[in-house]
Amino acid sequence: MKLTDRSVADLLAGFRSSEPTPGGGSAAALAGAVGASLLAMVAGLPKPRAATEEDLERLGAAGRRCAELSESLAALVDRDSEAYDTVVHAFKLPKSTDAEKATRSLRIQQAMQAATDTPLDVMRACSDAIEQAAVVAAFGNPNASSDVGVGLELLGAGLRGARLNVEINLGSLKDAELVTRARNESARLAMEAETGIAAARGKLGGQE
Amino acid sequence: MKLTDRSVADLLAGFRSSEPTPGGGSAAALAGAVGASLLAMVAGLPKPRAATEEDLERLGAAGRRCAELSESLAALVDRDSEAYDTVVHAFKLPKSTDAEKATRSLRIQQAMQAATDTPLDVMRACSDAIEQAAVVAAFGNPNASSDVGVGLELLGAGLRGARLNVEINLGSLKDAELVTRARNESARLAMEAETGIAAARGKLGGQE
Repeated sequence: MKLTDRSVADLLAGFRSSEPTPGGGSAAALAGAVGASLLAMVAGLPKPRAATEEDLERLGAAGRRCAELSESLAALVDRDSEAYDTVVHAFKLPKSTDAEKATRSLRIQQAMQAATDTPLDVMRACSDAIEQAAVVAAFGNPNASSDVGVGLELLGAGLRGARLNVEINLGSLKDAELVTRARNESARLAMEAETGIAAARGKLGGQE
Repeated sequence: MKLTDRSVADLLAGFRSSEPTPGGGSAAALAGAVGASLLAMVAGLPKPRAATEEDLERLGAAGRRCAELSESLAALVDRDSEAYDTVVHAFKLPKSTDAEKATRSLRIQQAMQAATDTPLDVMRACSDAIEQAAVVAAFGNPNASSDVGVGLELLGAGLRGARLNVEINLGSLKDAELVTRARNESARLAMEAETGIAAARGKLGGQE
């Protein structure tokens, strides 16, 4: 059963349990999904601050994008746990002969790459939603500014939480070029996110 | 149906929708619930770093407390939406006669007080879990340090998100003493949380 098909109470019990999954990676994706959902909600509220037709269109587009990102992040809640289960499985492969050792090592590397790509995708999606937040903050219904603020908190937590998972998995990857590329992208996304969050908060006006 | 009995996918759709609830207040409580759950998970993992019997006991106690806080925060997901629905309901009360106006005004104040108490309770619970995080970070299984890191991100986001809801509702409260008390507590909890998060991160070692 998909994690997102489980009840919220059941998923929380899953996070509390000592089973390997769901863990922090799925939790980070979930935070991002909730954050993007709140922005989509605000973009769809009546009485937006948008004054011109063009601003209204930008708000509508930002809302649709956030709804899409919320769905992508929800799918990443599951994908992160699957990726981690694949890592655990690869480590349990036999290693008696040289051939077995080689296969196991290859599978671990493949699994670790997927386990790095997944939180990197979470970071990308949160980053995209944070970009939309500036539009939602500027043109959305001003009475919902605390919802935009909470959305930004959750997207920031999702992105930074996903980064911790990228970093920890990079430590097990042997492909130096891949490691450098992922580490650079992760650092860039993290830096841009802090700027983007501050910019969106600035547009809320009086909220900070 | 309770929000936490709904599936995760369904709750996300609820956050995306333009219905007044669930909104940012419930989202903040949910972030805190997931964060506390991750800490409870790490506290229960085998191979803790705790060396002495006393440290192991402290870790166990912190884990049990985080599990309780996760349940309390899950209940606050629902309570926040109920409190907001009560506010919306109070604003819709008739106001044709003086008696009706007085009743409506009283009900709005009562509802606003509950709508302020609820995110304040979310802040208190997140703050308590952040205190436990120092013990989990110091004595939990070091391989799960990214889970502690994600937990801290989510608890910070939950607490700061709840604070936005406290502040916005305080604006509608007329009891000046109550407003001052709530505002002071909210500011103190927010400040202590940042110190507590930094302290817990410091104990993770090499994570920051």
